[in-house]
Amino acid sequence: MSISKKASALVLQSGGPTAVINQSLHGVVVASRDYAKIDRVLGAYHGLHGLLHENLIDLTQIDGERWKQIAACPGAALGSARLKPKKSDLDRVFEVFKAHNIQYVFYNGGNDSAEAAQLIRAEANARGVEIGILHIPKTIDNDLMETDHCPGFGSAARVASLLAAGDDLDNMSFYNGVKINIAMGRHTGWIAAGSALARHCFGDELENAAPHLVYFPEVKFNETSFLNDVQRTYDRLGRVTLVVSEGIADQFTGDAFVGNEKDEFGNPLFSGSGRLGDYLVHIVEKNLKIKSELGKLRARADTWGYMQRSILGITSENDAKDAFRVGADAVGYMMAGKSDSMVTIVRKSSEPYACQTSLCDLALVAQKTRYLPEEFMNSAKNGVSDAFLQYAAPLVGRLPAAQTLPVNLSEKRLSEYKR
Amino acid sequence: MSISKKASALVLQSGGPTAVINQSLHGVVVASRDYAKIDRVLGAYHGLHGLLHENLIDLTQIDGERWKQIAACPGAALGSARLKPKKSDLDRVFEVFKAHNIQYVFYNGGNDSAEAAQLIRAEANARGVEIGILHIPKTIDNDLMETDHCPGFGSAARVASLLAAGDDLDNMSFYNGVKINIAMGRHTGWIAAGSALARHCFGDELENAAPHLVYFPEVKFNETSFLNDVQRTYDRLGRVTLVVSEGIADQFTGDAFVGNEKDEFGNPLFSGSGRLGDYLVHIVEKNLKIKSELGKLRARADTWGYMQRSILGITSENDAKDAFRVGADAVGYMMAGKSDSMVTIVRKSSEPYACQTSLCDLALVAQKTRYLPEEFMNSAKNGVSDAFLQYAAPLVGRLPAAQTLPVNLSEKRLSEYKR
Repeated sequence: MSISKKASALVLQSGGPTAVINQSLHGVVVASRDYAKIDRVLGAYHGLHGLLHENLIDLTQIDGERWKQIAACPGAALGSARLKPKKSDLDRVFEVFKAHNIQYVFYNGGNDSAEAAQLIRAEANARGVEIGILHIPKTIDNDLMETDHCPGFGSAARVASLLAAGDDLDNMSFYNGVKINIAMGRHTGWIAAGSALARHCFGDELENAAPHLVYFPEVKFNETSFLNDVQRTYDRLGRVTLVVSEGIADQFTGDAFVGNEKDEFGNPLFSGSGRLGDYLVHIVEKNLKIKSELGKLRARADTWGYMQRSILGITSENDAKDAFRVGADAVGYMMAGKSDSMVTIVRKSSEPYACQTSLCDLALVAQKTRYLPEEFMNSAKNGVSDAFLQYAAPLVGRLPAAQTLPVNLSEKRLSEYKR
Repeated sequence: MSISKKASALVLQSGGPTAVINQSLHGVVVASRDYAKIDRVLGAYHGLHGLLHENLIDLTQIDGERWKQIAACPGAALGSARLKPKKSDLDRVFEVFKAHNIQYVFYNGGNDSAEAAQLIRAEANARGVEIGILHIPKTIDNDLMETDHCPGFGSAARVASLLAAGDDLDNMSFYNGVKINIAMGRHTGWIAAGSALARHCFGDELENAAPHLVYFPEVKFNETSFLNDVQRTYDRLGRVTLVVSEGIADQFTGDAFVGNEKDEFGNPLFSGSGRLGDYLVHIVEKNLKIKSELGKLRARADTWGYMQRSILGITSENDAKDAFRVGADAVGYMMAGKSDSMVTIVRKSSEPYACQTSLCDLALVAQKTRYLPEEFMNSAKNGVSDAFLQYAAPLVGRLPAAQTLPVNLSEKRLSEYKR
């Protein structure tokens, strides 16, 4: 690729938003200022939809203070979309490129957008059009190949950690029961695993630290093993706080769910609802006959849902920096004539945390999924390994302490009480 | 009450934890140091259960740094309970008081604990035992009479606001659909109302600011009005982000729920599950036939659940201060011979925020509920009034900006595209 005249850059945001996707957008805008060859940065309003309908926003017109606030916000500021370019769309895409003098394209998304970028790339080659296209990684799911981690994951794992740590403080102080949390992750267990950073909040109390059990879609879910795990943990601690990837739902057949194959609405089971949590509560309450001193066993579930990527005000600092970096470095690569690739993150060191970016071929990323590897699970595959905690700690960032009161009971002066 | 010798103080935490309940505990411990008449502060491990079983922790043995960390944590550090003293328990209660020289009792809880405090008070009177007892208010539900607000509410409303603001950024950037959030509040709409502080995050964009609709248990829920509200808001904004109190679930009969009176587990509907959200999604998708440019209508629900009181690291600063204050001031009142009451918060000013404490009779609080008053709702009763926003703003504290990108589309250069 060699483009000599001034041209416009275009950014598209695609797929589910993250807490730091706008950092990458800001990174592109800021870095572009250093290159006279980029006359302006356009944003496609709602991704490919905006590109096809020529809904373009000039991002160079927005002032710096507003940019800082936008960058700090969750949600895709440009608007996102989940469209895949059809063959018939490609003519239009190149018409819009030509009409707006767009020669640098930055596609910010997950493995689906990597595929979209590939399609546009192939079409440009076929047409002999000079277009630089780079994919900027983004996904809370952390499931892209070839990169140490994905911008967005650290913040989602941070939210999950704060939820798990606080939830266990709540459980130990009130329920003393089985508290189930459903984490995002349809195909991979990265976020559920990320919640295990909560263990670092508990400091000295690490042996009892939550989450006590974590279940991943990568591991076949077995109800009997699950119930045994819960029973054993309850017997040891008098409570269980656990995290389950929503993705394990796909392993249930309809039969597992009390004979119903669909819910009352005619929808398939579990997805995007509270039903997986409700089901796990049901099997725990039905099968574990635990009566604690404080009353009968209580099992409850929360489905963390969209807040894992969207709660305002919780971002991991390193995640925000990495997201900005992949955006900014993408511009540098593009201007150096390196294109047709995804920007990857290469970790140089974990303590202190240091990384740099590199590039990889789009074909190595498009439509591929990076699963949570076995070495990041414990031997029973119902929790994480130390290697995972070391990997994820700098991505999640320093967490507040979940401090507990030492339970040193005063000497008793009376006989036992039977209520 | 006049107690001349040295005696011990006892603190009980009762009912559901809050983000700042440990601030009140810390307040009692710190203020007690100023009074030589209090030889030590004991905590009942798991409330009344701990008191009956003589499970007492000497709180004066814990160092200051650890106290600060505990105070900053959600969850009831002493352990909570939901027991009501039976007539037969009262003998034991007074045995324990005597055995441990407990003459000052601080009961930290909601309206149920106010009732428990009342029962112990009445028994002490009947026995002629010198016991001072004060109730320290605590509840995320903000539903205690006689106090401007309850410690715990501000932080829960802060979490709800951050969730609602971030959720709308997510909705506008991705879904452009109907996003339903279920807030805590079985009988009152205070937390759902509190989520409306999210509006302050949106600054200039206030007209379109989320949550766009809020539903309270205090108002009879009407499905037709609800669907009309959603449709009207969707027509105006192209999305709807709304918050519903879980308490409205109690207004549904089984018939409303597609003919089922109980769920598959044989449980009553809705409570402690994702089912209310799932049901509202169902009626929205069934009744609203909206097709946006970006595809067919998407409706989704999140049930915020326990995180509203338990996520680690989110507290309102004023809420934390108020919680400490009611604990510390309780000790002062007790030592001044004022007892048999609940500590209340009296607001002196909202801007700048200033309050002080006072006392009220336990009978005015026990078993009573403070509902969200009409003047805190908008005229359609599907949102809050300015008066509520002014009331709640200092309790929730300053919120981060939910900044959006101005959608100024560049001039189009091509004809319209039909996909």
